[in-house]
Amino acid sequence: MPLTVYFAAGARLWPVYGEHLRAALAAEGVEAEILTDTPTDPAAVDYIVFAPGGDIADFRPYTRVKAVLNLWAGVERIVGNATLTQPLCRMVDAGMTEGMVEYVTANVLRHHLGLDRYLLGQDGWNPAEEVPPLARERPVTVLGFGELGQACGRALAALNFPVTGWSRTPRATPGLTCLHGPEGLEAALRRAQILVLLLPLTAETANLLNAERLAWLPRGAAIVNPGRGPLIDDAALLAALDAGHVGHATLDVFRTEPLPEGHPFWAHPRVTVTPHIAAGTRPITAARVVAENIRRGETGQPFLHLVDRARGY
Amino acid sequence: MPLTVYFAAGARLWPVYGEHLRAALAAEGVEAEILTDTPTDPAAVDYIVFAPGGDIADFRPYTRVKAVLNLWAGVERIVGNATLTQPLCRMVDAGMTEGMVEYVTANVLRHHLGLDRYLLGQDGWNPAEEVPPLARERPVTVLGFGELGQACGRALAALNFPVTGWSRTPRATPGLTCLHGPEGLEAALRRAQILVLLLPLTAETANLLNAERLAWLPRGAAIVNPGRGPLIDDAALLAALDAGHVGHATLDVFRTEPLPEGHPFWAHPRVTVTPHIAAGTRPITAARVVAENIRRGETGQPFLHLVDRARGY
Repeated sequence: MPLTVYFAAGARLWPVYGEHLRAALAAEGVEAEILTDTPTDPAAVDYIVFAPGGDIADFRPYTRVKAVLNLWAGVERIVGNATLTQPLCRMVDAGMTEGMVEYVTANVLRHHLGLDRYLLGQDGWNPAEEVPPLARERPVTVLGFGELGQACGRALAALNFPVTGWSRTPRATPGLTCLHGPEGLEAALRRAQILVLLLPLTAETANLLNAERLAWLPRGAAIVNPGRGPLIDDAALLAALDAGHVGHATLDVFRTEPLPEGHPFWAHPRVTVTPHIAAGTRPITAARVVAENIRRGETGQPFLHLVDRARGY
Repeated sequence: MPLTVYFAAGARLWPVYGEHLRAALAAEGVEAEILTDTPTDPAAVDYIVFAPGGDIADFRPYTRVKAVLNLWAGVERIVGNATLTQPLCRMVDAGMTEGMVEYVTANVLRHHLGLDRYLLGQDGWNPAEEVPPLARERPVTVLGFGELGQACGRALAALNFPVTGWSRTPRATPGLTCLHGPEGLEAALRRAQILVLLLPLTAETANLLNAERLAWLPRGAAIVNPGRGPLIDDAALLAALDAGHVGHATLDVFRTEPLPEGHPFWAHPRVTVTPHIAAGTRPITAARVVAENIRRGETGQPFLHLVDRARGY
């Protein structure tokens, strides 16, 4: 009997994912009927494919569901749902990781080389007074050193940047320096001429970058945030930018998205806003991750990228 | 008896290089007297350290000189000097190579991700309609695949870009694709969504990128030129930009530098001018290259980076 998979990721995403999901399931040898409307019999559903803004608020009727498979890396909008007791998997998509590495590397290099000076309002032939430092002389810190963070760290280290990772708890990160805990955080920030934020959003990481911790950064440091908007205390960041203590912030994520018109980030000369472009989930590769997890579930293997509900990611 | 080294690279560079050159010579165990003014006895000079704009037009009186050691990678302003019959060495400076790799990688990623859209005149929350291609789907071609070109090619390949190199003559480039000759050039240009120019300037490479060859690029291709200005036919480039055939050009080098006020490149919306910043020679590392070559000359080893005068680089 074929499985029943409920694609509960919103009607907008079905045209983007449908074909890829069918192909990926077939490639995994999984026979499945895919529902795209609210099922008449929730108790008949085997797997739920989910995205924030999707079609389920109450997961209790889905009594047979073996896993909820998230299409996004971030699960903060679902992990707190008390009705969700089924296993929950994050998306870890090779395409998304590659996109993130490209965004982070591009913006770290842009800040490192001071390219904006030449891109914005060309005011004639004005090279910097001194040959700028090489990447090997420009320490970069990456807060959040999971799969995404380490992938970015490796790419930056390959370009010679001295990379320091930081993770809440100790981590094995072969070939890369990774600090942890509160003292590690202070040390990681104090050396960060360029700071990249890739932490998951949890109760502990919300407003992690507050006024006190921004003050630990070296004067003129640049911040790149493709992680989650609430990692930064926005008012503290604006104050640090106005004081020139933080040299520039390139922000891809915000408390409210789209970033509202009139928000001070839009007009601030030391802020670059990108509209949540750093790492889009790629339907073709993400569909394969979903299909592989369904196949694993059906063949008794552990799910990939299972969320630790207590930890929140 | 100490050697006599004439620092003929202009009075402006001596304060920048003096200390590093003395230290590097000492580290190589070379005893040398360094002259910074036109020598009263040219026939007593053993080595000349040279930079374009330096203090020698006629090399014939320097009858004892064992090598002229250029501080720049490009030798087009000295190689045609008929009075120069002594061995001539180019500068291949690890710091310069690293700087070039950083500039090229930064600007290739910038074009790849379309970052200018977000940097120039933020006009609100306007993500691109589609998730853009990954680097692995964005072919990059590097014309000129010597030490600098291959270093850039390796960095781009490490970020997953499919890299094609092109060199006038066949080259062994382990792990990298390198085409050569006229047919190779056409094939390399036809696949170049982003094109990087790192050729030396010679009679054969001047105006290499003319109207015919620009037409071989895929529509919308971006060009990054940190090589030499005259590699491109400026009028043909402007026409291709105006027609939208070339999407953008980021130019670091020009026929006349500084680029004259009023030159059409300054105001063109599809041109980014950077003021010859891609790869400054780093005095500390360049001084070591000069000192090593002097030590090699004195101990009977072949000079590094010797220029082939017939070939022109």
